[in-house]
Amino acid sequence: MSDEVRERLAWVAVDWGSSHLRAWGLDERGEVLARGGSDKGMLALAPEDYEPALLETVGDWLPASGRVAVWICGMAGARQGWREAAYLPLPTRLEELTRGAVAPSLRDARLEVRLLPGLCQHADAAKRGFDVMRGEETQLAGLVAWEPEFSGLVCLPGTHAKWAWLEGGEVKRFATYLTGELYGLLAGQSVLRHTVADAGLVESGCREAFIGAVREAADEPGRFSQWLFGLRAADLLDDSLPAGEARRARLGARLSGLAIGLELGGVRHELASVPITLIGSEALCERYALALGALGHTSRRLDGEAAVLAGLGLARAGA
Amino acid sequence: MSDEVRERLAWVAVDWGSSHLRAWGLDERGEVLARGGSDKGMLALAPEDYEPALLETVGDWLPASGRVAVWICGMAGARQGWREAAYLPLPTRLEELTRGAVAPSLRDARLEVRLLPGLCQHADAAKRGFDVMRGEETQLAGLVAWEPEFSGLVCLPGTHAKWAWLEGGEVKRFATYLTGELYGLLAGQSVLRHTVADAGLVESGCREAFIGAVREAADEPGRFSQWLFGLRAADLLDDSLPAGEARRARLGARLSGLAIGLELGGVRHELASVPITLIGSEALCERYALALGALGHTSRRLDGEAAVLAGLGLARAGA
Repeated sequence: MSDEVRERLAWVAVDWGSSHLRAWGLDERGEVLARGGSDKGMLALAPEDYEPALLETVGDWLPASGRVAVWICGMAGARQGWREAAYLPLPTRLEELTRGAVAPSLRDARLEVRLLPGLCQHADAAKRGFDVMRGEETQLAGLVAWEPEFSGLVCLPGTHAKWAWLEGGEVKRFATYLTGELYGLLAGQSVLRHTVADAGLVESGCREAFIGAVREAADEPGRFSQWLFGLRAADLLDDSLPAGEARRARLGARLSGLAIGLELGGVRHELASVPITLIGSEALCERYALALGALGHTSRRLDGEAAVLAGLGLARAGA
Repeated sequence: MSDEVRERLAWVAVDWGSSHLRAWGLDERGEVLARGGSDKGMLALAPEDYEPALLETVGDWLPASGRVAVWICGMAGARQGWREAAYLPLPTRLEELTRGAVAPSLRDARLEVRLLPGLCQHADAAKRGFDVMRGEETQLAGLVAWEPEFSGLVCLPGTHAKWAWLEGGEVKRFATYLTGELYGLLAGQSVLRHTVADAGLVESGCREAFIGAVREAADEPGRFSQWLFGLRAADLLDDSLPAGEARRARLGARLSGLAIGLELGGVRHELASVPITLIGSEALCERYALALGALGHTSRRLDGEAAVLAGLGLARAGA
């Protein structure tokens, strides 16, 4: 980083998850001046390891004098992280994240760190169950930074996919589906591990297999674990499948469709006619858009990284 | 084994699975004279290893002269096993297993080995999907040995739980649910692994948690992967749960109920008012009986080991 750029640095944004951290250096207008990251996620760190891990990634961005604010979301604020930023209970406006932020003690005088809280939901007699999020709330805050009175349904696909219901910029309810983790366990560790491969949905046969599986699982979610074994049986018996790697790609696309279709079967009766807002990576959001489309629902995508930066920016602006 | 008992030995029954083999020495009336077993399952053996592995377990039972018939069901007859006994297609009567049996070549002249085939089902426009079984068909044959014209619905709980529809002793259709494997992956390898423990259903709180979860998952199977993450969230937030090991037992019982409830959600609309016949171990069948009872269905249990022996006996009688 040049000195000139270093002088423009206004603050640092960090998304610090279980297995990775990602950091961005930004100027006052929100332009990204630098990006960095490492695999020093929450699971690999004790509390005293966080400041050195942060400096390894962003130390070179810091000016020689003065103090730089670092806004951090994600698992670094968990009880087993750097310092706990206790969950905010629902319902809550996302501007409230600033109020729940905590400041860990630091050795390096150039840093001023804030860890954002997650959100928690207690069970009630209605649809709400016990649930927590830590990280995704900042992406929701990014949406609210762009559209302050947003009302609607938001889906953040991932290992633990989140669905959130917002009204006038306030989070009313959310639900987490273990979809990505379930897919990973089945594709990597189950009897299906030699049967499936993840080769994307570019090939038309894979796309059709995915869409068919989404519809089947959403229509009859109770047969999910039957269709899982059916992948193995089809591999043994179905002469219409291609051979070799193409076969595994086809069956992998079907497995992905079953996992996402099961999730959509759970939220299906709540999908209104307005577009669903997807926030996340392009590849995963495209897959969800295809699945939602197969069930007759429209969606739009907001970029996950841009949403994190906008959300951390909203928290910073409230300080 | 005494010489006297050795002289009464009429035949040997073997259930040879992926990870274990179990063997029984029987007299002409079907009385068990000896039992043995080892962890030399199909996954650990090359074709040439089977005869030595068999002799390790049953060699001491064999008389000094003469030839003893050994009837084997399970994965030893798979393509990747000792020698392939090709699947019999549905519909089929279970007496037909004898016809599909194959005889591997042997070195020891005291042995006469038959490997039974499994069953396969091709997909059709109706409820049937691609499916296979290898081992469970012999337990179904045991049921037919006891009740030759049996008609009804049979459930064999396990890693890959089987549901079979029989009419007049003939297998018309079956469906495999990956329930046990799904439970094992989630309890042992997922984010839930520190949240749940399997402590049985003796404690009344665990039994209630199990039953509640069965009903929820069977009623709304689409929310399965949401309830999975809900176990983690409840562990963090639910003050009504007991502490420590009792907490993990309670949440483990709920996980088991969710997995079995998902399965029952898939077959639920086909559960007639007649009792469902469960075949398997006492502990697992009791769990399924409790789950079926929670949905208003009655069941009876037949012992899994006795069914294997009766089924192998039926195959032998047809030779």
